[in-house]
Amino acid sequence: MIVMEPGATEEQIAEVVKEIKKYGLRADVSKGDFMTVIGPVGDERRLPFDHLAVLPGVKEATMVETPYKLISREYTKFFGEAGERRVIKVGNVSIGGGEPVFIAGPCAVESRKQLFKIAEGVKRAGAHILRGGVFKPRSSVHSFQGLGAGGQEEAEEALGWLHEAGEEFELPVITEIRGEAQVDLVAKYTDILHIGARNMYDQDLLVQAARKGKPVLVKRHFGASIEEFLSFAEYVAAEGNKDIILCERGIVPVGRGKSYTRYILDLAAVPVVQKETYLPVIVDPSHATGRRDLIFSMSCAAIAAGANGLMIEAHYDPREALVDGPQMITPDELRNVIDACRKIHKLVVSSQQSNEKN
Amino acid sequence: MIVMEPGATEEQIAEVVKEIKKYGLRADVSKGDFMTVIGPVGDERRLPFDHLAVLPGVKEATMVETPYKLISREYTKFFGEAGERRVIKVGNVSIGGGEPVFIAGPCAVESRKQLFKIAEGVKRAGAHILRGGVFKPRSSVHSFQGLGAGGQEEAEEALGWLHEAGEEFELPVITEIRGEAQVDLVAKYTDILHIGARNMYDQDLLVQAARKGKPVLVKRHFGASIEEFLSFAEYVAAEGNKDIILCERGIVPVGRGKSYTRYILDLAAVPVVQKETYLPVIVDPSHATGRRDLIFSMSCAAIAAGANGLMIEAHYDPREALVDGPQMITPDELRNVIDACRKIHKLVVSSQQSNEKN
Amino acid sequence: MIVMEPGATEEQIAEVVKEIKKYGLRADVSKGDFMTVIGPVGDERRLPFDHLAVLPGVKEATMVETPYKLISREYTKFFGEAGERRVIKVGNVSIGGGEPVFIAGPCAVESRKQLFKIAEGVKRAGAHILRGGVFKPRSSVHSFQGLGAGGQEEAEEALGWLHEAGEEFELPVITEIRGEAQVDLVAKYTDILHIGARNMYDQDLLVQAARKGKPVLVKRHFGASIEEFLSFAEYVAAEGNKDIILCERGIVPVGRGKSYTRYILDLAAVPVVQKETYLPVIVDPSHATGRRDLIFSMSCAAIAAGANGLMIEAHYDPREALVDGPQMITPDELRNVIDACRKIHKLVVSSQQSNEKN
Amino acid sequence: MIVMEPGATEEQIAEVVKEIKKYGLRADVSKGDFMTVIGPVGDERRLPFDHLAVLPGVKEATMVETPYKLISREYTKFFGEAGERRVIKVGNVSIGGGEPVFIAGPCAVESRKQLFKIAEGVKRAGAHILRGGVFKPRSSVHSFQGLGAGGQEEAEEALGWLHEAGEEFELPVITEIRGEAQVDLVAKYTDILHIGARNMYDQDLLVQAARKGKPVLVKRHFGASIEEFLSFAEYVAAEGNKDIILCERGIVPVGRGKSYTRYILDLAAVPVVQKETYLPVIVDPSHATGRRDLIFSMSCAAIAAGANGLMIEAHYDPREALVDGPQMITPDELRNVIDACRKIHKLVVSSQQSNEKN
Repeated sequence: MIVMEPGATEEQIAEVVKEIKKYGLRADVSKGDFMTVIGPVGDERRLPFDHLAVLPGVKEATMVETPYKLISREYTKFFGEAGERRVIKVGNVSIGGGEPVFIAGPCAVESRKQLFKIAEGVKRAGAHILRGGVFKPRSSVHSFQGLGAGGQEEAEEALGWLHEAGEEFELPVITEIRGEAQVDLVAKYTDILHIGARNMYDQDLLVQAARKGKPVLVKRHFGASIEEFLSFAEYVAAEGNKDIILCERGIVPVGRGKSYTRYILDLAAVPVVQKETYLPVIVDPSHATGRRDLIFSMSCAAIAAGANGLMIEAHYDPREALVDGPQMITPDELRNVIDACRKIHKLVVSSQQSNEKN
Repeated sequence: MIVMEPGATEEQIAEVVKEIKKYGLRADVSKGDFMTVIGPVGDERRLPFDHLAVLPGVKEATMVETPYKLISREYTKFFGEAGERRVIKVGNVSIGGGEPVFIAGPCAVESRKQLFKIAEGVKRAGAHILRGGVFKPRSSVHSFQGLGAGGQEEAEEALGWLHEAGEEFELPVITEIRGEAQVDLVAKYTDILHIGARNMYDQDLLVQAARKGKPVLVKRHFGASIEEFLSFAEYVAAEGNKDIILCERGIVPVGRGKSYTRYILDLAAVPVVQKETYLPVIVDPSHATGRRDLIFSMSCAAIAAGANGLMIEAHYDPREALVDGPQMITPDELRNVIDACRKIHKLVVSSQQSNEKN
Repeated sequence: MIVMEPGATEEQIAEVVKEIKKYGLRADVSKGDFMTVIGPVGDERRLPFDHLAVLPGVKEATMVETPYKLISREYTKFFGEAGERRVIKVGNVSIGGGEPVFIAGPCAVESRKQLFKIAEGVKRAGAHILRGGVFKPRSSVHSFQGLGAGGQEEAEEALGWLHEAGEEFELPVITEIRGEAQVDLVAKYTDILHIGARNMYDQDLLVQAARKGKPVLVKRHFGASIEEFLSFAEYVAAEGNKDIILCERGIVPVGRGKSYTRYILDLAAVPVVQKETYLPVIVDPSHATGRRDLIFSMSCAAIAAGANGLMIEAHYDPREALVDGPQMITPDELRNVIDACRKIHKLVVSSQQSNEKN
Repeated sequence: MIVMEPGATEEQIAEVVKEIKKYGLRADVSKGDFMTVIGPVGDERRLPFDHLAVLPGVKEATMVETPYKLISREYTKFFGEAGERRVIKVGNVSIGGGEPVFIAGPCAVESRKQLFKIAEGVKRAGAHILRGGVFKPRSSVHSFQGLGAGGQEEAEEALGWLHEAGEEFELPVITEIRGEAQVDLVAKYTDILHIGARNMYDQDLLVQAARKGKPVLVKRHFGASIEEFLSFAEYVAAEGNKDIILCERGIVPVGRGKSYTRYILDLAAVPVVQKETYLPVIVDPSHATGRRDLIFSMSCAAIAAGANGLMIEAHYDPREALVDGPQMITPDELRNVIDACRKIHKLVVSSQQSNEKN
């Protein structure tokens, strides 16, 4: 990591970048309010830090050995308070700002009518962003794979509905990209690109998604440690795209006998990720638990743990849903969740502040 | 499970018990406000339910196949609303009642002075019950094992301090029993018997502890599913002791790379256990995370998830502690945690109530 | 699953396929020596089995609820002994036949010279197939990603070397495909397409690879149960490609403290997969353990468990390797492994036969 | 760890021990053929190694930071080749010597007749040691807990049968101790004390068992890393009892969906434990898999991995067994397993030797 002097010129910055490239690495240039930080992308052990440190305009040049550095707080600590946490703006919505953000919608888009009815409901319930799956990752080839499975035309039609519903109800929209072939199409119609848990280790997909320049939501794989989770999010940042939303959605259950939830929601990941990175982190209680009757409790818990938002599956009639019915809640239930979460958020923030004053 | 008619006589009950014993099982007799339920202890498949069903005074006789039935809600649902959740009274403290209960104190009792100073601090912070380890389970024989390792006399001295400190600050006390040889001694000096996570699978210890007639706190083993957790708590209930406090304290981390916490706190276990059983469930964020800087967040999250209380390690000077210093908080920090948790609890309960009204 | 009468005509088969498609499913047609079996691809619950059962030429029509059916033994049991196990032919090599198959080579292709030297070594050691990574999946964007990371031209050059080395030493070649964009290129130069553990859940990649018509080697993800492993391999079969080689390479370690190996090699997966499917299953002890000094033992164990082959990383000088040096063995060590494994295989097969006679 | 000079006197050794005790630690004194090594038991950081190093007769005094040192190879490497691996003698049987040892018998002792019939069968099959559970650890209080559950008298009767059967068929016997209260009784009747997986973390039980001076078999807990496994075995060694047999029997399955085996047998633990310690390590394929049809394969694999023996459940009629029927094999099947394993063992040893010569 190379920290430039506050007054470093563009030429001096370019010189450092050029030097880094000479050794086969790429360079990430981040400009804060007061200073610029340059992060090498690649194996830093090849760089001559002694030499870099004495280039004009360079304040500090140090090797960082962690697998994630471009998304680490280490990297932005030179930018002053404002730079310490990233706020991602999507339309009128700020993710990672003061207020928790609620993403809601059906597991899968099934029809224009279904989507609009749910969009209307979640908007009314207080949600900020509309979700809806067009390409569904499924463990069995013998299950419904989303309308996207019907071919390019059907996929585009479903994505179009999503876009329209977003316009109609003033909700930015997000949908999952399951394979590289879907990146362009999804980026054309949606505001946030969603990389699902199953694809977290798919570095090529992360790179392709990052390059569209839109915010990327990365879910933690259910077999991944937090270190691995952040190391793969780094693939997005290494493409120059720092608008990354991290999402905890549960890790694999351990032990014999029933666990009663689909995955184990690791809520400590929320404060841990916030301490390690400057990125917002949200929680998906729907996929984590797979149980409608646990959504309220786990949503409250996630916000109390400090989550910057939630992603919740909602449907006006969960029994009708083709996918994941047992984990969806109704718009009315969603409103209760959102109301409770907002109050808890306020309370926790004020407790923390009085805490810090003492 | 045999449900007796509301007006069943003692003789009729005794007759059913006698019949159950005939087949080599024991019988657990639970009396609710309106009716009595008899739970066979042992392999129910040996029982002639058709015959039991027609005995005088018997309303219903059905086989229950789950490995935990005496602690299940199934078992008390005949008792009316009052019987649905167990409230455990220890001195003036009610565990599982309306308010969350806070258990706090040092990881290990190190001296009379240390203990009293901490007891004073946690009392002032609002804690209800004092904890302090005398027999410390440790992964390495080469680590400090608690004062109890010094022999009977030292153990008794340390337990005496705990008892005294409880009297002095009006705090019921709890300490861990690590082996069967310690049961009598610990039961003599403390109000709640604590079976640690490492000993959860130790059915002989559970049975011995249960027989003392005092409340037993059972921690979930870090490799146990919820089903196993409840199945082992059932060993306590099978001795006729239903004063069981269940405690979630994290399961083993999964995956390669750093997880940043010692264990994974499974907060969904809180509502799940409350749906499965009538027992109170508390959370230990100290052992789960092993990190002082996560206690506030994870305590708030646990209470938001509906936990009936928390068990937190506290020390006036964590750096001085012989065991687990990195996870202890000060009494001042504890007060902030307790204050925030109380407010969150109130908020969640009122949200849930308005939720249910809708 | 629809089993046709031994003498069913092409027209009758076509009629069944047509009927299945009417309900939105695809149909997999498998012809055995005596009869034809048709497997619907998609949600079988939509099909009218009663109606299918009475179509001309149909012997049996039954719903199969498992997520993997096209690769199950259930599916081929009507084909007689010959159909019971699939033997995959690649050049002169038979995978899944009587003899264990050894795939060996460097973790990453680094240069033409390095590759040829290793190819010569592993050929001499008795290996049948040459491996070498061009697109390396890595947990850190800051690590060497294989020559494929240098762009299309460099990737094609490296793949060309692999092809040439295969020709020169008469070894079919295999390399990993990490993303969909690489499928065409890799299929052009190699004999077997390798889907790595990290990509196992990437169903779009599996489908793309399957469509090239070449054998596909699918590694089990380190967070996947065997059921999930087989369910994702089914994606390949559902494209009509049954030339699938399954590979066990370890699951995530569990517990606190050191595990001493990178992953936990689940050798019971070998006989389990062989009982569940008709596909060959091989084992990769190199990635599973990450330790050169365990390759001999774990290779012997894998073959003793019945594995149809091994995939082992080898290098003439492991210390020089850019990736995974600590887990590579030399060609000389490889020869010892192969020799021992062949003898163990013979011994186990003959013990099993005498076992079955008794 | 303090290594004494080859000619160190008893007085010099006593002086070192005295010095160690002064700091509150205990001392383990191990005498090899040429020299004596003293291992402090307790927190070595308290010891003044500089001072210890200059005591008369002391060759080297160094701090060892691992949680297991008394059982580590580090500790015996000064004893010459003979000291490098511990051979445990029980009657005529040598565990950890050149030949693999087979322990077999029923899961639970059910009657004198059942036990004798099985003992006769396993003897004929080639087994060396007879197993049989009297105190059965069970996940459900509602399951059969072994004859030991019937009280002291019944327990003693069943243990007596075990002892008699051992005499009759010249087989040393082993049975599980589940709680401290059973230690004396079990030690009276059996040759090896068996600590089950569920009790591995029960340090008090390990200490009590160790003190009987008989060999102790310690099974790895299904949630324990290898480091934890060895750290708890160290509790036995710290009592001066180095006759420890380590047993791998599977760790908890990971992931969603079916795993098809009860636990995941971690066979790499075999060579790892042999590299880390001088103790013999055996494998229990019965509890690991829970499936009779996998015993042959996993036994062969365990021996191929280098295991010093196997512990296998056997019954003349598995369908009749009260516990674990589905995982037991018949004496005839056992003979096949033992025959195959012996041949594999020979083959692997000779391959390794020729390997080392090259």
